[in-house]
Amino acid sequence: MPSFRSFQPPSRLLLGPGPSPVPQRILDALARPTIGHLDPAFIGMMDELKELLRYAFRTGNALTLPVSAPGSAGMEAAFVNLVEPGDTVVVCRNGVFGGRMRENVVRLGATAVMVDDAFGRPIDLDKVEAALKAHPGAKALAFVHAETSTGAVSDAAALCRLAREHGALSLVDSVTGLGGIPVEVDAWGADAIYSGSQKCLAAPPGLSPLSFGEAAVAALKARRTPVQSWFLDLGLVMNYWQGVGARAYHHTAPINMLYALHEALLMLREEGLEAAWARHRANHLRLRDGLAAIGLHLFVEERARLPQLNAVQVPDGVDEAAVRRRLLDEHGIEIGAGLGELAGRIWRIGLMGAGSTPENVDRVLEALGAVLGRKPA
Amino acid sequence: MPSFRSFQPPSRLLLGPGPSPVPQRILDALARPTIGHLDPAFIGMMDELKELLRYAFRTGNALTLPVSAPGSAGMEAAFVNLVEPGDTVVVCRNGVFGGRMRENVVRLGATAVMVDDAFGRPIDLDKVEAALKAHPGAKALAFVHAETSTGAVSDAAALCRLAREHGALSLVDSVTGLGGIPVEVDAWGADAIYSGSQKCLAAPPGLSPLSFGEAAVAALKARRTPVQSWFLDLGLVMNYWQGVGARAYHHTAPINMLYALHEALLMLREEGLEAAWARHRANHLRLRDGLAAIGLHLFVEERARLPQLNAVQVPDGVDEAAVRRRLLDEHGIEIGAGLGELAGRIWRIGLMGAGSTPENVDRVLEALGAVLGRKPA
Repeated sequence: MPSFRSFQPPSRLLLGPGPSPVPQRILDALARPTIGHLDPAFIGMMDELKELLRYAFRTGNALTLPVSAPGSAGMEAAFVNLVEPGDTVVVCRNGVFGGRMRENVVRLGATAVMVDDAFGRPIDLDKVEAALKAHPGAKALAFVHAETSTGAVSDAAALCRLAREHGALSLVDSVTGLGGIPVEVDAWGADAIYSGSQKCLAAPPGLSPLSFGEAAVAALKARRTPVQSWFLDLGLVMNYWQGVGARAYHHTAPINMLYALHEALLMLREEGLEAAWARHRANHLRLRDGLAAIGLHLFVEERARLPQLNAVQVPDGVDEAAVRRRLLDEHGIEIGAGLGELAGRIWRIGLMGAGSTPENVDRVLEALGAVLGRKPA
Repeated sequence: MPSFRSFQPPSRLLLGPGPSPVPQRILDALARPTIGHLDPAFIGMMDELKELLRYAFRTGNALTLPVSAPGSAGMEAAFVNLVEPGDTVVVCRNGVFGGRMRENVVRLGATAVMVDDAFGRPIDLDKVEAALKAHPGAKALAFVHAETSTGAVSDAAALCRLAREHGALSLVDSVTGLGGIPVEVDAWGADAIYSGSQKCLAAPPGLSPLSFGEAAVAALKARRTPVQSWFLDLGLVMNYWQGVGARAYHHTAPINMLYALHEALLMLREEGLEAAWARHRANHLRLRDGLAAIGLHLFVEERARLPQLNAVQVPDGVDEAAVRRRLLDEHGIEIGAGLGELAGRIWRIGLMGAGSTPENVDRVLEALGAVLGRKPA
């Protein structure tokens, strides 16, 4: 075997769709000594972590915890716990992650009724209402609040209301939303929601914060069939995260990652949610103006733009992959490619969490201008 | 909300069933700056990581990678990829984790044929052979090589051979085995095996190394039904870990945890697998002798003892939980309780990974003696 060495990551400014830059303070927390997952001191930290997640999600939901795996597992946890074989779920698809929701539904032996919108457009409420009317027994309405693949935000409050009016549970993906734009779990009446640690929360990837409201917990308790995943069965996970007295061992928690998420949420609370939202918005506007000055255009219409994830149209005749490679190699800046039907058509510039600063906006604008040979007008 | 502070873990010596003590060098690797999961530098590190895992597992299996979640998810990955609804699986249960394997099989809509042995005993080969004969179409034989709940090791080579002779895939849990005792994937002809990062590999919890041999990959390709978990679908995960050229995004890899596992495996290779096994064995013997000197007995018969996980019989009249609490509070040492039917009857003293040193053996013996009021004879 060749002789390998300790891995020293190159210096990068992460302005893609995630992971976002992780502040040194969070990396320091990550590297604190590992202790046991049943240690009383660790369990005290878990209780704080749940409280901090409730702050971030704006909810009083008792069942609020981080799933011990990345956002994709958070999505799967939401589906496998709430949906049973034979159920019907209305799934909105206006990007790649809506398509992944469909995969989850189908693999459960349930039926996915798709509501499709063009990638980059917000979800059309009228189409959703029509689908819910056409499928009166639908168990859930599943949608992506902040589409990481396109940079479009949809009206989560209205979608949750539609679900409620039609007796369906709302199942919300806000992997890219949480911490960057308003996520109002209680005000929306969202029944189930999940996010990711590595976007606007500024922690490393590997955890998926999740929250279930009362109706979702009731659905979990009323299941006719066991949850198909043992690892993601929230009935069991809860015994560890919420157990009083006899806290039951379920799986070994990812101790150090939880230290990091705790620290990231502390930092978010110190800044304040509203201040974090305002910062993400201000830096987005700075980027928008700077892009316009070098003749680049945002792909998403103004009312639906996510400030933390900016889809930029690739100009005609430009080799988008070559531009990304030069940004990385010559400027140490990572931006994202388009996914799915947007591959080759957009770049994705993330200004997420600690990455959302005026300095970073200026740096990526200058680098893009240099690579494309464009000067601000 | 109360005002929380950065979490500062108390000083602990981790001598329980895992996590084991994480060396500073691995914590330092964990805390290196996060980079993107599609960054060419990161992908180079992933290739090294796979090679290092093949070293640890003693295999040339192409499909060898860390699942992005704890050992329980590694178990689930093995089952959901290899077993389909309607299949029959012979499951050996001589501890808690055999019971968890049964849960996985049942939730898949498959049939689990149980081969039960008493907790703490190795798996009885004759019973397994009889079960395989009685169920000639069984898809797999699933067993726990190193039972974390009891400290017993079973004859993995013989069990894999029995599976092969009866046309069943062998599906092996070596969460606690890997790095501490011989794990010989190719020599055994094990078809599927998984482990955990937080035991004898000395990394933090949160990753599950997994390896599939040719027959397992063939079974995966010949499936009649989709894998019920999208997140754990190895057909998709492989496109990210093994993709040549166009590496397809599947989920966001837990970047920093992978840095840590890479470093842990480098350290294992520097020491050498055989040297690590010998160290675990020598410290186990030191512990055994020291326990005998204070009148404490190991629970597992000599031929089946795991050196890295020592089940100690709780003496009559001793409040085992009070002893563990005093070890933690007064001596800063964590040891484990019994699980399942062994709750209250044993302690579990782990000497895993970096925890397996003569100094740690002496420290836990001295502390146990002090708490129990026993002096070496």
